[in-house]
Amino acid sequence: MGKACRVAVAGLGTVGAATVRLLQQQASLIEARAGRAIEVVAVSARRRNLERDCDLATAEWYDDPTVMARDAACDVVVELIGGSDGVAKAMVEAALGAGRHVVSANKALLAHHGAALATQAEAAGLALGYEAAVAGGIPIIKTLREGMAANAVNRVYGILNGTCNFILSNMRETGRDFEVVLAEAQALGYAEADPSFDVDGVDAAHKLSLLASLAFGSAVAFDQVYCEGIRGVTAFDIASADELGYRIKLLGVATRSDQGIEQRVHPAMVRKTAPIAAVEGVLNAVVAEGDFVGSIMAEGPGAGGDATASAVVADVIDIARGNLLPAFAVPASDLVAAKILPMDKHWGSFYVRLTVLDRPGVIADIAAALRDQAISVESLLQHGRANGKTAPVSVVITTHETTEAAMRRALAEIALSEAVVEPPMVIRIEGL
Amino acid sequence: MGKACRVAVAGLGTVGAATVRLLQQQASLIEARAGRAIEVVAVSARRRNLERDCDLATAEWYDDPTVMARDAACDVVVELIGGSDGVAKAMVEAALGAGRHVVSANKALLAHHGAALATQAEAAGLALGYEAAVAGGIPIIKTLREGMAANAVNRVYGILNGTCNFILSNMRETGRDFEVVLAEAQALGYAEADPSFDVDGVDAAHKLSLLASLAFGSAVAFDQVYCEGIRGVTAFDIASADELGYRIKLLGVATRSDQGIEQRVHPAMVRKTAPIAAVEGVLNAVVAEGDFVGSIMAEGPGAGGDATASAVVADVIDIARGNLLPAFAVPASDLVAAKILPMDKHWGSFYVRLTVLDRPGVIADIAAALRDQAISVESLLQHGRANGKTAPVSVVITTHETTEAAMRRALAEIALSEAVVEPPMVIRIEGL
Repeated sequence: MGKACRVAVAGLGTVGAATVRLLQQQASLIEARAGRAIEVVAVSARRRNLERDCDLATAEWYDDPTVMARDAACDVVVELIGGSDGVAKAMVEAALGAGRHVVSANKALLAHHGAALATQAEAAGLALGYEAAVAGGIPIIKTLREGMAANAVNRVYGILNGTCNFILSNMRETGRDFEVVLAEAQALGYAEADPSFDVDGVDAAHKLSLLASLAFGSAVAFDQVYCEGIRGVTAFDIASADELGYRIKLLGVATRSDQGIEQRVHPAMVRKTAPIAAVEGVLNAVVAEGDFVGSIMAEGPGAGGDATASAVVADVIDIARGNLLPAFAVPASDLVAAKILPMDKHWGSFYVRLTVLDRPGVIADIAAALRDQAISVESLLQHGRANGKTAPVSVVITTHETTEAAMRRALAEIALSEAVVEPPMVIRIEGL
Repeated sequence: MGKACRVAVAGLGTVGAATVRLLQQQASLIEARAGRAIEVVAVSARRRNLERDCDLATAEWYDDPTVMARDAACDVVVELIGGSDGVAKAMVEAALGAGRHVVSANKALLAHHGAALATQAEAAGLALGYEAAVAGGIPIIKTLREGMAANAVNRVYGILNGTCNFILSNMRETGRDFEVVLAEAQALGYAEADPSFDVDGVDAAHKLSLLASLAFGSAVAFDQVYCEGIRGVTAFDIASADELGYRIKLLGVATRSDQGIEQRVHPAMVRKTAPIAAVEGVLNAVVAEGDFVGSIMAEGPGAGGDATASAVVADVIDIARGNLLPAFAVPASDLVAAKILPMDKHWGSFYVRLTVLDRPGVIADIAAALRDQAISVESLLQHGRANGKTAPVSVVITTHETTEAAMRRALAEIALSEAVVEPPMVIRIEGL
């Protein structure tokens, strides 16, 4: 057995406390697997005197995590503070500057500064682990970086936000609308009081940008992820999807082609028979397509203190074993600034829901607008019939493949009609 | 960049040729990820003059793989010959004896001699990689050994044989019987001319014994895997399962408790809503339950040249990177000879199909036999009604949880009745 690997943990919320508890509770198992003991020697958090579900008696307390990162006698600093800048960034930079390996669960930090931090880490011969930052407990970073290392990956996609997946699954099961289910998710603790980061797709976009970088060997480009959340998805859309043979999921999708890289987060219709369609509730799942292996799907808990701690400690064990790999699979200096395609270039099929007045000529106008953009209609269905002439009805259209730009032009034309009384709802149909 | 990592490949069938082709085709990508080039320097196969889908021009040819393992100037020997003993075993031992790392896709070899080979490898400071031996292209060995390293795993189970899963999926979709679908699978190349290894569960048992060892830190105990194949599953059973809310899958299940380790391969009924129930066709999937992370499922291609080569090369890349871990997660000397529970001790629910003569008193006798073993019946249903008094009918029983021993005693009693005209068919119901 080698010398103990000494760990300093910054941030003692749900994940931080679970990480400390895990390292204590599984100490002998971890020592057997890592070949050396792993000990928590220092901790830092905003408030010292909170009840926490772990034992901090033997750890040195620091009020300032940046001071801890620099001064504590440790080998690895674990950053569980969160936030793309501020204290988290300062302390990670300080830790790397002081020669400590870093493990972080902070997707916002990695999405914004991943390439720079990876460069700093590698220059110093240090690891930057972030397994816990993507899909919680699922070892998808390891799967992509090591398990699929023999493959060129040209598409990676997934259900990257458990809150959204819970809401969409629940909406489907109960037929209720978004706001009602969101309120329930908040009561259950599955959604934050301010749910924007989750339901607007930002959290999924953070994670997708990391997956894309790792899969394609490109520099993280979070600011170029197209991002659309689930607030506009209605119970009617979910029922329509079901009729059409689809499930609606908030997907993050990254693809690489000769034209460039596409990165997008939005509600998507996936065939009920696709493996990812069966992923329900708060679970996450990621599918990576390798040119030799084919499709690999990994499914599991995407959040939660214990599950996330499992991923944090897996990174720490790798470091303790001396398995130090470049953060994004290839040296940071080799990461290319790939061309990121604008969403206008997206090629795919569409579901469009229009709310229109039920009167002669409306359907003809809609059909003409689509024709003018050379968009081929797969199905067009008016749902229900208005009681009075002024009450609107829903029209559901599915199209064959076209470009996002053509679809937007057609919708702009359609929206001009005074018979169209609400902005059109568009959900992309994913060919999975 | 370090010195090139030199690889010798023994066995140039589908997987062997794909491995050589992969290493050539992805050479620059692999070099970037491994930090050094990986080159095929030697090959061996039974027949030299076959058309193969790879370039062997720069590799030294050996007629004898054992000679190659010993004499070729290489760092890693890849064994793709197959078979639990004979040439495969001799050449792996020779390779380790000569100081070469070994990567093998040979589940039979590992299931029979894994612990001994791991001991030999570790004593020499060498790696023994076998990612490709379990679930083909799915990186489940890495997931268990590294991704879930922070967890005590107390259950691991999966669909470990694509041939059986194809047959069962197809039987369900088409309503046809086993023999018909098997013949079709053979015609499609999904089943061997002699399908015994697959359909009798032996292949799945090999893989399960490796998963159990890795998950539980116990010595591989293939000879103590309870093993039952799918030959007895009928179209009627599959339709009954569907009615009851289940799918029938050939599962390998390993569990650990205070009593000991249970290892079993058999057709099982799993709830349609369980993630593994959605795994269809030739796909494989493995679920591992960690005490911190919860359930992780990995799904993907369990066979095929390219997919398996992906796993083989992932192991080679790990070795080239210097990521040398004990084969079964902990040093071979630490693997415990765990108590393996006999199948009699299995505790679970059962589906029983009886073929009986349709006459008064038969059901009462069956019910009495179950009562005498304190087995609680959940449902008992006679299917159809015989036309004549001598034509048999099917009776389907589902039970609450009981022991396998009690169920066997009850079935022995039931089989004594002259009204029971065929041996009972038992399918265990899995609480997943």
